[in-house]
Amino acid sequence: MVERRKPISIGEAVKRVMNYAKNGKTEYISITNSYGRYLSEDIIATHDVPHFDRAPYDGFAVRSIDTVGASQENQVEFEVIDHIGAGLITSKNVGPFQCVRIMTGAQMPEQCDAVVMLELAKEMERDGKNYMAVKRASKNGENVSFRGEDAKEGDVLVKKGTFINPGIQAVLATFGYAQVPVAQKPVVGLFATGTELLEVEEPLSPGKIRNSNSHMISAQIERAGAEVHYFGKLPDDFDICFEAVKNALDKVDMLVTTGGVSVGDFDYLPDIYEKLQAEVLFNKVGMRPGSVTTVAQYQGKLLFGLSGNPSACYVGFELFTRPVIRTLLFSEKPHLRKEQAILTANFPKANPFARFVRSALDFQDGRLTASPSGVDKSNIVMSLAGADSLMILPGGTRGFAAGDEVELLLLEDQTGSEWPW
Amino acid sequence: MVERRKPISIGEAVKRVMNYAKNGKTEYISITNSYGRYLSEDIIATHDVPHFDRAPYDGFAVRSIDTVGASQENQVEFEVIDHIGAGLITSKNVGPFQCVRIMTGAQMPEQCDAVVMLELAKEMERDGKNYMAVKRASKNGENVSFRGEDAKEGDVLVKKGTFINPGIQAVLATFGYAQVPVAQKPVVGLFATGTELLEVEEPLSPGKIRNSNSHMISAQIERAGAEVHYFGKLPDDFDICFEAVKNALDKVDMLVTTGGVSVGDFDYLPDIYEKLQAEVLFNKVGMRPGSVTTVAQYQGKLLFGLSGNPSACYVGFELFTRPVIRTLLFSEKPHLRKEQAILTANFPKANPFARFVRSALDFQDGRLTASPSGVDKSNIVMSLAGADSLMILPGGTRGFAAGDEVELLLLEDQTGSEWPW
Repeated sequence: MVERRKPISIGEAVKRVMNYAKNGKTEYISITNSYGRYLSEDIIATHDVPHFDRAPYDGFAVRSIDTVGASQENQVEFEVIDHIGAGLITSKNVGPFQCVRIMTGAQMPEQCDAVVMLELAKEMERDGKNYMAVKRASKNGENVSFRGEDAKEGDVLVKKGTFINPGIQAVLATFGYAQVPVAQKPVVGLFATGTELLEVEEPLSPGKIRNSNSHMISAQIERAGAEVHYFGKLPDDFDICFEAVKNALDKVDMLVTTGGVSVGDFDYLPDIYEKLQAEVLFNKVGMRPGSVTTVAQYQGKLLFGLSGNPSACYVGFELFTRPVIRTLLFSEKPHLRKEQAILTANFPKANPFARFVRSALDFQDGRLTASPSGVDKSNIVMSLAGADSLMILPGGTRGFAAGDEVELLLLEDQTGSEWPW
Repeated sequence: MVERRKPISIGEAVKRVMNYAKNGKTEYISITNSYGRYLSEDIIATHDVPHFDRAPYDGFAVRSIDTVGASQENQVEFEVIDHIGAGLITSKNVGPFQCVRIMTGAQMPEQCDAVVMLELAKEMERDGKNYMAVKRASKNGENVSFRGEDAKEGDVLVKKGTFINPGIQAVLATFGYAQVPVAQKPVVGLFATGTELLEVEEPLSPGKIRNSNSHMISAQIERAGAEVHYFGKLPDDFDICFEAVKNALDKVDMLVTTGGVSVGDFDYLPDIYEKLQAEVLFNKVGMRPGSVTTVAQYQGKLLFGLSGNPSACYVGFELFTRPVIRTLLFSEKPHLRKEQAILTANFPKANPFARFVRSALDFQDGRLTASPSGVDKSNIVMSLAGADSLMILPGGTRGFAAGDEVELLLLEDQTGSEWPW
């Protein structure tokens, strides 16, 4: 007999899952390994930047008062009493009509308040001493970067939950974060189900196909910022399966299974949930592909029963599992970023339910466009290869034409979305 | 004395560098570790997909000829002689008015040519035997996925140079690529220069700043797909520096230095290039920041002398070093992707030279927008943290206003560009 399931809306399904999403834990790692991780704390300026008055150009540090009256007709001469590079400090006391040759980044001598740029100074030597002359007055503060002008101690520079990019690495280094507070990588357990599945190294045999879902989902887990713990393929025996799932739960932050959730005769994941006394949050969603996605919770841990169909599996992971991972990574925008895009091809199929079409995004004169990335049959693995986005075609629509505006979820983006539904 | 240097155009500079760019080497790695690497060979379908005629739905496999004449008034009955799930094959011979209950993905019995969907069949039991009845004729081939319908053996599915995403992992698994041909990660050597530099774990001291460039560039190297070999900070002694640079070259595919390339008195990288008898490809580019970028080649290996200024260093890497790395990774579009964007803020500064402004991209109603990601002074590390793109403001312009269209280079994109200059 075919079991009757009542589909719920995507937004409602996501909401039920997100009730169990929570922030993860912090670990401190070397800045050398922090690129690509997620900050678990706000990054604060630990000192002013610059933390001393500095020269932003190569030139001569002067007391601006000495330059008063300098002009084309009346050049003013300075004795060059020292020469310092970045990182060095002069030990000299700069008196009237004296100056220090200074390089970009060097600290200003205490008595000086302006820098004359190299190009505007005339250098000369006389009696074994160095001099330079200016034909223009400097203002107090001219060509000086003042302490705290770029950042003040205590400023929040980067918010927690942010993906650490090269620029953030520079910020971390500048402020002495040798050890960086990042979110521990969530551990996602993974089981495949399906007697039809061969492992990737096995030769093909009649009626069987290779297990592509585990490798796909593993990469999706990595892309989302988590770590995969692959437990292998569930065997065909209910009791062994039950024990395997139960034991796996202790070792992971959440569990993903692919396949075994249909109403088909060989799908026994629903029975496992029941015996486990896990609470099923939903077992049918009003969407294509992925309508039979089932999510349950057991003692606060989420069990994602994704479809065995590759596309449904892919979409189910991105909509339901990814935001839970990103929340563990402290993101305040854990969902896929949603933007408007122009459809570049006809999509004549009617959509009784919301449909997610694997798409390739592009730009035409600065406008975001979306093209289906392959034949849109849910069994076609190949169209996933070219997908960097998912087009959302709302339910109850009769197909779309090239030029129509559609909503697009971006898969390779780190910005995310607060609540796209 | 200030050395005179002749600036060349950005396009000419990139071209001179790319003369020395070449494809890298292949290594075979386990599919388990291949996510995020770059394919070094085209991926070919090693068999048809599906590789047998299969049922795309749960239902009953029938001989369509037996359903001829079925209608609301005239239901046709079939004996159900077997029941197979995905991965299984029936051993039965399906005769007239017999059928096999079949699950999604299972191989079609040899004698059958159509599947009646579960919802359209009426099931019953009689005398311990199973039957089902249909009220509609099936066509030959109806609800059957035929061998080779998704992909034919020999089809090129993914081109070399492509970043391996989750969908490509699925393709690799499907076709039995247990070992995946990927580009060896190029090794990029890195030296910092500058007596003003403290390491990240050192406390601040007067006149000194922490070395942020090495950490930033290391992350840029990783983002580009290569591996960093950090040799530390070059000491202040010319001969030691020369030996260090010379020895490093043997260990790496290319060498990046930050700082030491100005015309400043403490910048001796030009002398190192000279003593090495390296050919300087250029030492000044008509752009801001980064005009003093110097690139040389020694026996075909590139030496990137990037500015010590963080922003100039960042931009120089992305324009000149990244495409060389991506070419080693077999990309045919090794340069940063360039798109049109709408400027969201005024940028009143005149640009005698092409200017690259660190920017944050966003979308407004599907249109790409760009906002400067912080105060645009080249010494400000903080504006790099929010940068996911570089706005190009052409030289010889008098500033830009919100709403103007600008060109934008995307930093976090895997698609790239063939030749954006």
